[in-house]
Amino acid sequence: MKTGLVSLVGAGPGDCGLITLAGARRLAEAELVLYDALVAEEILSLAPNALRVPVGKRAGRPSASQASIERLMIRAARRGRRVVRLKGGDPFVLGRGGEEALALAGAGVPFEVVPGVSSAVAAPGLAGIPLTHRGLSSAFVVVSGHSEESCRPVLEGLAPSTATLVVLMGLGRRKEIVSLLLRRGWKPATPAAICAGASTPESTLWTGRLDELADVPQSHGLPGTIVIGEVVELSAEIGSQGLRHRPEAGQARIYATRT
Amino acid sequence: MKTGLVSLVGAGPGDCGLITLAGARRLAEAELVLYDALVAEEILSLAPNALRVPVGKRAGRPSASQASIERLMIRAARRGRRVVRLKGGDPFVLGRGGEEALALAGAGVPFEVVPGVSSAVAAPGLAGIPLTHRGLSSAFVVVSGHSEESCRPVLEGLAPSTATLVVLMGLGRRKEIVSLLLRRGWKPATPAAICAGASTPESTLWTGRLDELADVPQSHGLPGTIVIGEVVELSAEIGSQGLRHRPEAGQARIYATRT
Repeated sequence: MKTGLVSLVGAGPGDCGLITLAGARRLAEAELVLYDALVAEEILSLAPNALRVPVGKRAGRPSASQASIERLMIRAARRGRRVVRLKGGDPFVLGRGGEEALALAGAGVPFEVVPGVSSAVAAPGLAGIPLTHRGLSSAFVVVSGHSEESCRPVLEGLAPSTATLVVLMGLGRRKEIVSLLLRRGWKPATPAAICAGASTPESTLWTGRLDELADVPQSHGLPGTIVIGEVVELSAEIGSQGLRHRPEAGQARIYATRT
Repeated sequence: MKTGLVSLVGAGPGDCGLITLAGARRLAEAELVLYDALVAEEILSLAPNALRVPVGKRAGRPSASQASIERLMIRAARRGRRVVRLKGGDPFVLGRGGEEALALAGAGVPFEVVPGVSSAVAAPGLAGIPLTHRGLSSAFVVVSGHSEESCRPVLEGLAPSTATLVVLMGLGRRKEIVSLLLRRGWKPATPAAICAGASTPESTLWTGRLDELADVPQSHGLPGTIVIGEVVELSAEIGSQGLRHRPEAGQARIYATRT
C-alpha cells in the first residue's frame, strides 16, 4: 500500500508567483488540499487533481475546528493519500502550524514542512520597506495583534525604537496598540505604514505617523500588515506610489516595479 | 530599444525548491545574474541564458564592493538587459537590498522586488521549531549578530523571554550574545538551538540550553541560525532527529519529513 504524506505548505502572501517551487510541486501531486480562507483561486489551480476543502473562516461562517482539520489530514494520510495543508504565508508563523505538526507527529503520520514567504516580510518589502537597513534598523519584531494577551507583553517588553515593529492581524486593534506604544515611550512621529492586500492587485499602502495610525480607515477588510519604524521612510524613495502590480501577458507579474 | 529591468530576487534559504515561482521565472529570463556567495549551483542553473557573476565573499577573497555591484546592475539595465540580483533568503532581510533598491531608484532604473523565504523563519521551521506557538510565544525577534552595534541595543532593549529570539549571522559572536542575554535576565536553562546549513543535505541541528550555546562547536563554517526560546522544545516532538533531507528520484526533495 502507498504511504501517505502530509505537507504543511506555506502559500506565501497571496500572489500565485510567491509560492515556492516545492510548494507548487506538492500541490501538483496532491490528492487532498485543505486550505485557509486567504489562499487565492490561482494558487488552488496548481492542484488540479485534488479534492480542495476550505477550512478557514469565510464570509462570516465559522472555520472548521482545529481538531477536525487534524482528523481529516491524519485519516487521509493513513489511507495513503498525498495531502497538502495550505496555509497563508509560512506554515509556522502565527498560524497554527505547530499544533498541526504536533498532531501529525503524535499520530505517527509521515509529514513535512515546506516553508513559505511570510507576509511579515513580503508585505513591507513589496511596498518598498526593507525591515532592516544599515544605520536605521538591524532587527525586526513580528507580533500577533490578534488579542491583548498575544501582543501586550511583547510590546511592553520592547524598548521604544530598538527594532522595526511588524504587527500581523492587528488592524482591528490598532487603537490599543498605538496607545500602548505611545505610553511605552515611542515617539508620536515614528513613521508607520499599513500594507493591505500585499501582492494582490488590490494592494494599498498607507504611510504616516504612529499617532495617526489609529485613525486610518480600514481597507475593505483586506488583511493588513502594520509596520512601525524609521525604515518606513524608505518607501517614499524605494517605491511607494511607484511600486505596483503590473500583470504581463503570458509571464510573471512584476511585483513591485518602479519605472 | 528594449527596457531593462533589475529584479531583486530572494533565493530562499538554500535548497532550489525554496525559491518562488516568480523568482525562478525571472532567472529563466535573465541575461545577467549577480549572486551572493551562499546561492547554490542548482539555483543558478535556473538561469541557463545568463552571464552569472559572483559578487559575494568566497574562500577568503573579498566580495565585490557595494558600489560596483550597483554600478553593474544600473549599467546593464540601461543597456536594456534583464538583470537578476540574487540574494540569499529575502532581499530585504539583513542583506543590503534596501541600499541596492535606493541606488536603482536614484538612477531611475526600472526595478522590482521579488520576496523570498527568509532563513530566519525557514531554518527553524525545517528543524521542527515553529517561531510562534499558542501558549509559548506569540512573537519573534530577528536580529543581526554580525557586530556588537547591530545586536547589543536590540538585545538590551528586549525584556527576557517575551518573544522567540532569532539571531542571524551570530555564530561567531555567540559567546558575547549569551553573556549579554544572561546579564539581561534570561534564564540559563532557556531552550536554544543552532540550525546550520538549513535546507541543504549538510543541515545539522543542535539543541540545548542558552548557557551551553557558547560552547557548541561551529559546524564546518555552514551558515547558522540561532534560536532561543521555549518553542525550541517542540523540535523534539515535531521533528528533531526525524526531520531530514531525503532526495527522491525524479521529484521534489522532502524537506523535513518525520516518518
